[in-house]
Amino acid sequence: METVSKAKSHGGVQGVYRHDSAITGTTMTFAVFVPPQAAHGPVPVLWYLSGLTCTHANVMDKGEYRAAAAEHGVILVAPDTSPRGTDVPDEPDNWQFGSGAGFYLDATEAPFATHYRMYSYLVEELTALVAAEFPADMSRHGIFGHSMGGHGALTIALKHPDRFKSCSAFAPIVQPSTADWSRPALEKYLGTDESGWREYDAVALIEDGKRFPEFLVDQGSADPFLKTGLRPELLERACTAAGIPLTLNMREGYDHSYFFISTFMEDHIGWHAARLAR
Amino acid sequence: METVSKAKSHGGVQGVYRHDSAITGTTMTFAVFVPPQAAHGPVPVLWYLSGLTCTHANVMDKGEYRAAAAEHGVILVAPDTSPRGTDVPDEPDNWQFGSGAGFYLDATEAPFATHYRMYSYLVEELTALVAAEFPADMSRHGIFGHSMGGHGALTIALKHPDRFKSCSAFAPIVQPSTADWSRPALEKYLGTDESGWREYDAVALIEDGKRFPEFLVDQGSADPFLKTGLRPELLERACTAAGIPLTLNMREGYDHSYFFISTFMEDHIGWHAARLAR
Repeated sequence: METVSKAKSHGGVQGVYRHDSAITGTTMTFAVFVPPQAAHGPVPVLWYLSGLTCTHANVMDKGEYRAAAAEHGVILVAPDTSPRGTDVPDEPDNWQFGSGAGFYLDATEAPFATHYRMYSYLVEELTALVAAEFPADMSRHGIFGHSMGGHGALTIALKHPDRFKSCSAFAPIVQPSTADWSRPALEKYLGTDESGWREYDAVALIEDGKRFPEFLVDQGSADPFLKTGLRPELLERACTAAGIPLTLNMREGYDHSYFFISTFMEDHIGWHAARLAR
Repeated sequence: METVSKAKSHGGVQGVYRHDSAITGTTMTFAVFVPPQAAHGPVPVLWYLSGLTCTHANVMDKGEYRAAAAEHGVILVAPDTSPRGTDVPDEPDNWQFGSGAGFYLDATEAPFATHYRMYSYLVEELTALVAAEFPADMSRHGIFGHSMGGHGALTIALKHPDRFKSCSAFAPIVQPSTADWSRPALEKYLGTDESGWREYDAVALIEDGKRFPEFLVDQGSADPFLKTGLRPELLERACTAAGIPLTLNMREGYDHSYFFISTFMEDHIGWHAARLAR
């Protein structure tokens, strides 16, 4: 692991790091904030998964998470959203597929299956790297994310309820397998057999029996993607049917941007910290 | 004035606006955050002046000011740092001069005097525009800034003690007329007669009799520009000699970046708000 940059912030250290991933076959960049409490021993880890088009840097620059992470004493890890590089197949003009749009899945279709393996990269390789390189209490993880990253957080938490103690999302894509803006990506990554898409779809995972203790979701009412891509009512219906407590906060007048996310970041980090303290 | 973008954030509205400036002869862009309290009547105005290479967007994205501005009920205005455009003379490879480096002065030398008039633009034109377009209490202004923008805030406050009730800075350039990294810019903008430089130099203004009630300065000890460009001890000496109270907080381990600024943003906004409430 190579340190790209490090700066003191809010009493902790905001770093950016790079490593060669065996799973994606590329050099991957990620950001980690280590709070001041880590000087006295391992602290819980909160994973933040970003949305379409983002790198590790969007939430690092605009997420306003450091004050709350420093207050509550949690490490915040912000991975990239896809493999990147000249060897990695991409559609440069398509913001919903390829670079910046890994959808937190393991692609099965050529030529994408070689590099687009963000699911395994996160739950195996980057988790092991964080455990090895940072003062992280690996018995206490939380996960959250925005939009495509909300989808990532929900699906990864549902598949790993023993690992993650908490899961929340800002404006998540709750059912990518039926949204027009994500179906083309799933088809290219996973093939035309839609049964294979269900393990990367939060609503389908719940329908298929996966469970998690509870979810927190914040969603802006002025989000332009609310009705077509996001549709939190589908998650609400699935959670109700499955008996999963869901706190769904509809936020009047907020859009899909980091101006929205940053407003409720402190709430989410405090909510995770309370569950990670147990 | 044209609205470039508007988004709800922290209960208020973060906007970006554009207008044709008669003073700079260019289209100028700036950001304004209006807090929720403005729905009930005019609120105080805090001007944030940015550093070298910045636009209005750097502090808007990375400054983490909206939570505190919304809490205290102040408008925050973030202007650009120079005129910009194909007609504007520039040295594209020089980050310390030209675009992004207006130094908050009115240039007197050709060809720069035509457009590089950020001092008059701010204290006259943009002030009038903010008064006309936003719910601003024009009897209560504060001003602060970072680096070159700290220089701008200190010098503008010293020249307008009746207008501004408060002035603070993050890592300001306190004596640009003697710093190697700013002398070339002052010479190009203002000519070789250095006596003309003194009105754009905080330490010189104090030496020449200008006064302000008090200053707050935060400075990182790990700032790479501390010893050559910034030198807060020169401001400390001038303030002591002039009897101006200066709170100079040296912040151990912090650098020159927005990771530093955002850490102490809440402190500064609270400090201004207390003085603007009087």
